[in-house]
Amino acid sequence: MDAAGHPALLIVDTISSLGCMDYRHDEWGVDVMVCASQKGLMLPPGLGMNAVSPRALEASTSATLPRSYWAWDPVLTMNERGFFPYTPPTNLLYGLEEALAMLLAEGLDNVFARHHRFAEATRTAVRSWGLELCCRNPEEYSDSVTAVWMPDGHDADALRELILDRFDMSLGKGLGKVEGRVFRIGHLGDLNELMLAGTLCGVEMGLGLAGVPHEKEGVAAALSYLASTANA
Amino acid sequence: MDAAGHPALLIVDTISSLGCMDYRHDEWGVDVMVCASQKGLMLPPGLGMNAVSPRALEASTSATLPRSYWAWDPVLTMNERGFFPYTPPTNLLYGLEEALAMLLAEGLDNVFARHHRFAEATRTAVRSWGLELCCRNPEEYSDSVTAVWMPDGHDADALRELILDRFDMSLGKGLGKVEGRVFRIGHLGDLNELMLAGTLCGVEMGLGLAGVPHEKEGVAAALSYLASTANA
Amino acid sequence: MDAAGHPALLIVDTISSLGCMDYRHDEWGVDVMVCASQKGLMLPPGLGMNAVSPRALEASTSATLPRSYWAWDPVLTMNERGFFPYTPPTNLLYGLEEALAMLLAEGLDNVFARHHRFAEATRTAVRSWGLELCCRNPEEYSDSVTAVWMPDGHDADALRELILDRFDMSLGKGLGKVEGRVFRIGHLGDLNELMLAGTLCGVEMGLGLAGVPHEKEGVAAALSYLASTANA
Amino acid sequence: MDAAGHPALLIVDTISSLGCMDYRHDEWGVDVMVCASQKGLMLPPGLGMNAVSPRALEASTSATLPRSYWAWDPVLTMNERGFFPYTPPTNLLYGLEEALAMLLAEGLDNVFARHHRFAEATRTAVRSWGLELCCRNPEEYSDSVTAVWMPDGHDADALRELILDRFDMSLGKGLGKVEGRVFRIGHLGDLNELMLAGTLCGVEMGLGLAGVPHEKEGVAAALSYLASTANA
Repeated sequence: MDAAGHPALLIVDTISSLGCMDYRHDEWGVDVMVCASQKGLMLPPGLGMNAVSPRALEASTSATLPRSYWAWDPVLTMNERGFFPYTPPTNLLYGLEEALAMLLAEGLDNVFARHHRFAEATRTAVRSWGLELCCRNPEEYSDSVTAVWMPDGHDADALRELILDRFDMSLGKGLGKVEGRVFRIGHLGDLNELMLAGTLCGVEMGLGLAGVPHEKEGVAAALSYLASTANA
Repeated sequence: MDAAGHPALLIVDTISSLGCMDYRHDEWGVDVMVCASQKGLMLPPGLGMNAVSPRALEASTSATLPRSYWAWDPVLTMNERGFFPYTPPTNLLYGLEEALAMLLAEGLDNVFARHHRFAEATRTAVRSWGLELCCRNPEEYSDSVTAVWMPDGHDADALRELILDRFDMSLGKGLGKVEGRVFRIGHLGDLNELMLAGTLCGVEMGLGLAGVPHEKEGVAAALSYLASTANA
Repeated sequence: MDAAGHPALLIVDTISSLGCMDYRHDEWGVDVMVCASQKGLMLPPGLGMNAVSPRALEASTSATLPRSYWAWDPVLTMNERGFFPYTPPTNLLYGLEEALAMLLAEGLDNVFARHHRFAEATRTAVRSWGLELCCRNPEEYSDSVTAVWMPDGHDADALRELILDRFDMSLGKGLGKVEGRVFRIGHLGDLNELMLAGTLCGVEMGLGLAGVPHEKEGVAAALSYLASTANA
Repeated sequence: MDAAGHPALLIVDTISSLGCMDYRHDEWGVDVMVCASQKGLMLPPGLGMNAVSPRALEASTSATLPRSYWAWDPVLTMNERGFFPYTPPTNLLYGLEEALAMLLAEGLDNVFARHHRFAEATRTAVRSWGLELCCRNPEEYSDSVTAVWMPDGHDADALRELILDRFDMSLGKGLGKVEGRVFRIGHLGDLNELMLAGTLCGVEMGLGLAGVPHEKEGVAAALSYLASTANA
């Protein structure tokens, strides 16, 4: 956009990535960032957050779309005095304070490295099952969630239902045009090696029980990767 | 004891088994049962419980060991009116009510079957690692915890420390004369397939990192067993 | 509106009243009801709820105001299958289930009577302090919250700040044109006699410390009322 | 004891006073202090604590009373390595850490002053009701709990039951020879002015409903005292 000299505002959805992968609002020249509490910030759903550039604020003064709850002005005005224009979920604000303290105590670089390592372990498992990643371009891999193609003739939602039913684990659904073709493995937030390992075990057992053709090598490969990258 | 006509009282420690394996106080003629809240009853530590036979109560009337807190009489007297002779941990009593409701909702037979299945999966993993169970007699296997011998020349506590350090998982210590020779894997209480699978993954990775000779087949064997025995 | 034969939709804000005072959506012919979790439903903020009449749904099909998050259609469609179009605060939905069970266990008539009794006790205290209720028409008294006029020359927000500072109690602010002239005493939700009594004690002590002219009779009058109306 | 040169050990029960009133184990030459978690330490019941002098330890080496759970040696030995000889209530140890942080953040002098002020407010209320304190010697007043004599012919336990039934408040029972003659008002731990005020309101309403002769001046007197001593 900079190269093209285009005046459009740059909007970034960080809902599934903030607190998981590097994000630099100012440095990257983002105008509006949208986030929420329930992923990398490790809280229940209930907080939506925006970071807004001066250019976006300026644009909002002449925007004509009717808005009330979504208007930034009352929030900015009230925030200056430490308040909100509407009833805030105070409990989640305390939770956010604690979540941020936890992320900073671990160190953001360590947090990002942990997410990358768990994502690599998951992608290793997927490849070792002989399944295909939904994302074809390694530069665009997500360190928060891994979407997996089902082999032709197999229904991702039937697999998801079986795994929920037998092992009490809820995998993500394929959304939009990949519905039924893809399932998603989340690996973000308050997660450690053994929780991830248990997750991959659930997928491997589920693939077997659902009769989905695969190599039973995914868990073993992920464990090798996790062990070889464990901190001394 | 019955066969020998011996008058001794029969005391059973069910701390690690109540709510995990079948126990029949009256039918088995047990005189004193000792239990606690923190294992199969799925609560924090803090409640100690006794079931006491008429014969044991009778014996206590002429027992000469000085006792005060441990005396049964004041408890029985106060319990009749719904009270305790000392400050009770009311919060844990509410927790116990909920824990018992959970066990009964699952059905005791199902609870016992679940513990047996998880224990079998664990023993399958141990054998597949090429390691030896501490318990040699299958009739005496515990469905709550599995103790594993370390190969000669390897220290169980060094392994336990490595696993705690790298994977934030605390395995049980060998007690008494098997200290350092044995580690224990707990598989009881509020546990499901994937938590157990994560546990076994942690042990398998730990064995590798600690340089303990083993076959990397334990997790795979346990997953096969768990998948083949999963409810349809 | 019925008498006038006016076609406007009737919208009712029950945020501060649902679960406190009688409300009859269908019987009263309400078209849109707006509610939230954090008052009479005794939960943290985070759930907004609508009850919508067929006539309002019909009107929404031809409404031209741009809307996305606020649109009813996706919610209705997804709800039919037990889902939400956006990430729901599952924790609050479990809380709502428990809150409704508590209200039904007490009995809605008892819940409403309790709120009325506490409101009467509060209004009795206000009158006995020699202060004036903001609401002049007894038919319009709220059983959820009581707004109180400050005597001329006294600042409601200074009183609120003093009470917060000395007694850790946060009273409601006068909103809009009564800002600084009015403070509000909430008496709704998970509240019993002694919590209300403590609240009124805080106001009475605060009035004294802030030098607001008043009779020190409010707490005594409220206690007399509460005692004379206590269940046998 | 020092004056008499008596060799007996000095044992102090601080269960209801630690964290409420000044206590100086070493300075006062106490040999054994007994405490628990559920009063001034603001935790659920479940932790018992001892402070033990070298002289008491010495005495224990030659004591002949059979003991096992109550023996100090295994605790001291294990504590040196950061462990306990029996399963500890880890959750309460974390709670204790937080409780101590709260007490130190408030400042022990402030904590003691707060308890003294609340106790004075309570004693003021009792006198203003025209009732008699159980403790006749002001030097021995407790800042944790206030025991109150019932007028002749009135049953303390009937009053307690009425207050529990109508106002959901549980007052302490008279123990031993003052059973039925005395009720106790606790005012310790995590308590603020308005919680205490609500408590006294409950007693005043209960006295009225139970037909116990009293002046309705207790709450008013306590509020005057609390307001006049509130921090600026």
